[in-house]
Amino acid sequence: MKTYFDCIPCFIRQTLEAARIATSDEKLQEKILRGVLRSVSKMDLSKSPPVMGQYIHRLIREISGSQDPYKKLKDSFNKLALDIYPDLSDRVKKASDPFEAAVRFAIAGNIIDSGAVHNLSKSYIIETIEQALSQKLSGNIEKFRIAMNLAKKILYIGDNTGEIVFDRLLIQQMPNDKITFVVRGYPVINDATLIDAKTAGLTDIVEVIDNGSDAPGTILENCSKEFLRHFSDADLIIAKGQGNYETLSNADKSIFFILKAKCPVIARNIGCEIGSLIIKDSNSGSQFKGSRFKVKDRPASLASESITGR
Amino acid sequence: MKTYFDCIPCFIRQTLEAARIATSDEKLQEKILRGVLRSVSKMDLSKSPPVMGQYIHRLIREISGSQDPYKKLKDSFNKLALDIYPDLSDRVKKASDPFEAAVRFAIAGNIIDSGAVHNLSKSYIIETIEQALSQKLSGNIEKFRIAMNLAKKILYIGDNTGEIVFDRLLIQQMPNDKITFVVRGYPVINDATLIDAKTAGLTDIVEVIDNGSDAPGTILENCSKEFLRHFSDADLIIAKGQGNYETLSNADKSIFFILKAKCPVIARNIGCEIGSLIIKDSNSGSQFKGSRFKVKDRPASLASESITGR
Repeated sequence: MKTYFDCIPCFIRQTLEAARIATSDEKLQEKILRGVLRSVSKMDLSKSPPVMGQYIHRLIREISGSQDPYKKLKDSFNKLALDIYPDLSDRVKKASDPFEAAVRFAIAGNIIDSGAVHNLSKSYIIETIEQALSQKLSGNIEKFRIAMNLAKKILYIGDNTGEIVFDRLLIQQMPNDKITFVVRGYPVINDATLIDAKTAGLTDIVEVIDNGSDAPGTILENCSKEFLRHFSDADLIIAKGQGNYETLSNADKSIFFILKAKCPVIARNIGCEIGSLIIKDSNSGSQFKGSRFKVKDRPASLASESITGR
Repeated sequence: MKTYFDCIPCFIRQTLEAARIATSDEKLQEKILRGVLRSVSKMDLSKSPPVMGQYIHRLIREISGSQDPYKKLKDSFNKLALDIYPDLSDRVKKASDPFEAAVRFAIAGNIIDSGAVHNLSKSYIIETIEQALSQKLSGNIEKFRIAMNLAKKILYIGDNTGEIVFDRLLIQQMPNDKITFVVRGYPVINDATLIDAKTAGLTDIVEVIDNGSDAPGTILENCSKEFLRHFSDADLIIAKGQGNYETLSNADKSIFFILKAKCPVIARNIGCEIGSLIIKDSNSGSQFKGSRFKVKDRPASLASESITGR
């Protein structure tokens, strides 16, 4: 997905919120804001929004000196999700269709997105989860169920901390042995990394890898060889959340995007209402052709390389 | 008032909205967005927000080629206000305190601010006006009434189209012969100019001048000699709306700011809730010392002089 004009005010809002989380020093906050404004003024709008997101959060880490500004927030999201996990797990087991119940909880868990939703309260998260079973589910869950059963290798690309605890609910309703779960390679916003996958208990039930990248999405050009091999080998990809949708919606691969549509740009792109629970399949060819990105010789690094050609 | 960090995402949001009003050409919208992002990245935050507003709307007029992009919107606001004027005038006359009723309607009319409120609907404006009589009025209306009665020369600095029809309600409860009403010198956002003052019927009841400036506020350095003479001579200034508050809150002059607080930055600066009806007096010296600005030798012009030192 390209970057729409409406993403631009949102980048600046997100930058200010994130800068304030990363540092209380107003001089540094100002430096971050000015740097992002300058870069956004020159950005390539044909790139997806997480390309700018990656740049913004690299700049924030670099200027604030904090390598993981969202650490405390991430820990609190994991804790909250783990606290309610036993109850939700019980409700999934007792549901008339446990797979559908788990899909709904996994999508609702995508509300825990500090990029799209600022100042997320515990009560708002719980309310969103509670609504998941009764809310309309947009998309074809039967097609998803069949694809899952037919697939030999499933790559499940996760999104945020806390949310991945709800992904665990879904994975437990799936053929575990076929699944590789993916987290980000480095901290960015509240996206989940390996340590969160351990905390969420995912490493006990499926293979978990990281994608080698610090983007808040899956920028294929930026991912590790190991991830790209899994991506190429999988015959079904499940991609959670907005960032993965934005970066993979044009990929030549069979992908089921499952997400909560949280912003007007995504809602318009998908053709749904804000707040919708979405299962969207890519309808593209089933074989990854490798034509849309090139595996880099060197692994993706944290090098603060500008995307704006400065 | 200085520019706060929170004003910055708002500048970008306003720019996109205004660019879309000024032109449907996405290439020009993009050029406007990139130009504003670049300028905001270099802006002097000690200046008030309308300084950047003035630059943004100059750039929009320059790039879009439209000298008055809000013309249609302004005409519709004037029409709406004139349509409900007879009824409101009647309600003011029948009120137990006609002056207070008129103050309330004049403040509520400040909702018609396309800079602060996007996509203003007719029903929202009417609802805001209807709430005005029962809503809490923050500030000392008795002090305002006394100041008005004691003053020999009153300068009433207006704000937006439509809104100035409600100012007429208030002016009719005041000693008309003491009042000079001020509009902007050139079109900017939906701010009122001389033609709107005529449409609103203000020119029939008081002297009306323009301030010679195209800023969405009153940047004294930027105003005409004639305006500055009136500003200096007046012993009471009434300044309507956020833009006039932002630009005059530090002026060394006795000013009553009357406005509806529509954004969190203004609400925080004043110390009130968003949506409040505000009468705020400057509590500063009663004589304008002329120390804070310099009357320019040449009249304020529309020259697109950058404020960011490019």
